[in-house]
Amino acid sequence: MADKILMAHGSGGLMSHDLITSRVAAKLQNEILGTMDDAAVLNCEGRLAFTTDSYVVTPCFFPGGDIGKLAVCGTVNDLSVMGASPRYLSLGLILEEGLPLSELDTIMDSIAAAASEAGVQVVTGDTKVVARGSADKIFINTSGIGLLRPGTRISGSCARPGDVIIINGTIADHGTAVLSQREGLKFSGELCSDCAPLNGLVEAVLDACGDIHAMRDPTRGGLATSLNEIARQSSVGIVINEEAVPVRQPVASLCELLGLDPLYVANEGKLLVFVPASGAEKVVGAMQNQKYGRQARVIGKVTEAGPSRVMMRTRLGTTRIVNMITGDLLPRIC
Amino acid sequence: MADKILMAHGSGGLMSHDLITSRVAAKLQNEILGTMDDAAVLNCEGRLAFTTDSYVVTPCFFPGGDIGKLAVCGTVNDLSVMGASPRYLSLGLILEEGLPLSELDTIMDSIAAAASEAGVQVVTGDTKVVARGSADKIFINTSGIGLLRPGTRISGSCARPGDVIIINGTIADHGTAVLSQREGLKFSGELCSDCAPLNGLVEAVLDACGDIHAMRDPTRGGLATSLNEIARQSSVGIVINEEAVPVRQPVASLCELLGLDPLYVANEGKLLVFVPASGAEKVVGAMQNQKYGRQARVIGKVTEAGPSRVMMRTRLGTTRIVNMITGDLLPRIC
Repeated sequence: MADKILMAHGSGGLMSHDLITSRVAAKLQNEILGTMDDAAVLNCEGRLAFTTDSYVVTPCFFPGGDIGKLAVCGTVNDLSVMGASPRYLSLGLILEEGLPLSELDTIMDSIAAAASEAGVQVVTGDTKVVARGSADKIFINTSGIGLLRPGTRISGSCARPGDVIIINGTIADHGTAVLSQREGLKFSGELCSDCAPLNGLVEAVLDACGDIHAMRDPTRGGLATSLNEIARQSSVGIVINEEAVPVRQPVASLCELLGLDPLYVANEGKLLVFVPASGAEKVVGAMQNQKYGRQARVIGKVTEAGPSRVMMRTRLGTTRIVNMITGDLLPRIC
Repeated sequence: MADKILMAHGSGGLMSHDLITSRVAAKLQNEILGTMDDAAVLNCEGRLAFTTDSYVVTPCFFPGGDIGKLAVCGTVNDLSVMGASPRYLSLGLILEEGLPLSELDTIMDSIAAAASEAGVQVVTGDTKVVARGSADKIFINTSGIGLLRPGTRISGSCARPGDVIIINGTIADHGTAVLSQREGLKFSGELCSDCAPLNGLVEAVLDACGDIHAMRDPTRGGLATSLNEIARQSSVGIVINEEAVPVRQPVASLCELLGLDPLYVANEGKLLVFVPASGAEKVVGAMQNQKYGRQARVIGKVTEAGPSRVMMRTRLGTTRIVNMITGDLLPRIC
């Protein structure tokens, strides 16, 4: 048996069948996937959340995770921030000819472990193979279905003046970890992706307060981009305090060295919560009791003034505009 | 403004936002997608079908379609053959730096047109950009959600001895059309992909007969592979008649020239129906009244003998085994 992906693994024939059975489905065993039909059959009642993301991170292994863990967590988190409980994932693999099967195995193990932690099932999948040079090792798409709590209406368009903005911990960990691995930087040992499934944390937030306005996981484009998106969607102003936004020291050092602004560097385990001031304390407390929320804190607020704009009070006491990224900061970090 | 995809289009910042707003979402306008949140919110009741497929066809434009049309039809068809009515699609784009925006526009137009014909909405999406040489122009993932008719239980594992096997038309059109375009073959003008959304045809089949056992769209690996999959899943024998399986003359000629067996060449608009003999006539009649079913006919039957095996009675009157593909027939035809 070959130890690398061959074009014949994508033929749809016997080798595809064996690869999928022994190396993909075997890691994800559940009754629904086991039917091996053209689609999974699910029993769902009520309102659903449905999302998709393709993952092209390079390198596909990095401190704190790999493309498999990322592909599960990223989609779980996109469902969670809508106030949905993630249930089912699809898994679409695009494999480059020559990918070592041992790497595929490791990635599949990560997918299985992350799915298990998040309590989701991979219920349907697809595997394609392209010739050497037509892709970069492995690309993964996951789409996800989650069940919405009755009555929840959480959206990037629902932030309101007076809302307090809470984050669950330090920013820019993921992007800097991937970058350091990619560039072979020496102090990479101190950098580690925050990649994590946030559905447990979100459940705690929703249990603590029934009036959450908006949530978002600030991934590609970082905190600055997510805040700008919500400011636009809700036509509100946002002000954050630089001092309140936590950045780990090795992350801050790497960013300074490379001229990166941590506000724009990707996260994969961060949660932004927009909640009326009256609920903020309860939410922060509930988050701090959770594995991925120990460092939860308030970083800013929503204002009527300056609609669709994000401002930051700097450490120097000045105020500056935080724009969306206009160029190409860090390609392929997710 | 650039006329090609740049790395900055994948930054998650302003250029990503503009690309998605003006060239992707603009073509797919619907209220659900319009919220631009991290996930779409859907109202669904009852049993759902959920499926995913990544599309990597090369070249991405071919006679009878392109990667956009294919990405909608393929996923619509995977839902349809489960007896589901396709409703919602996700759209994950992986774009190679340098892709002409005009080609993206054409592909997005095809996606919109195919979604409109099939009556489905693209409700959530994602766009990634990778550097030149890290992908081949464009890869598309679509995942889909469909609503199952109450009481339907259609699966590749439900074929039973005595079932009749019906197909809706000629085989091997898609694979040969893509191949001829790829190789620049002269007589390509006569070859055309059968790429089409089959949900209307499937509705007609289900209306005609309440006792459909299995359906499948024989795509990658062709008719032979789908029949082998169902023979295995249902632990039944299958016998088809070579004379009954329709192949267009230019397709047969190209296959002969290249040493390809049309049984293994991909289709993208074909439907296999497994139905008890008593229902066969009604189903064939109903299919023939549909746009994509004019040539519907019986091509074989399910037997108790030879479980998990597919046999073919040849034109010469002999019988041969039809195996699954073991090598690499035609890469990247879907």
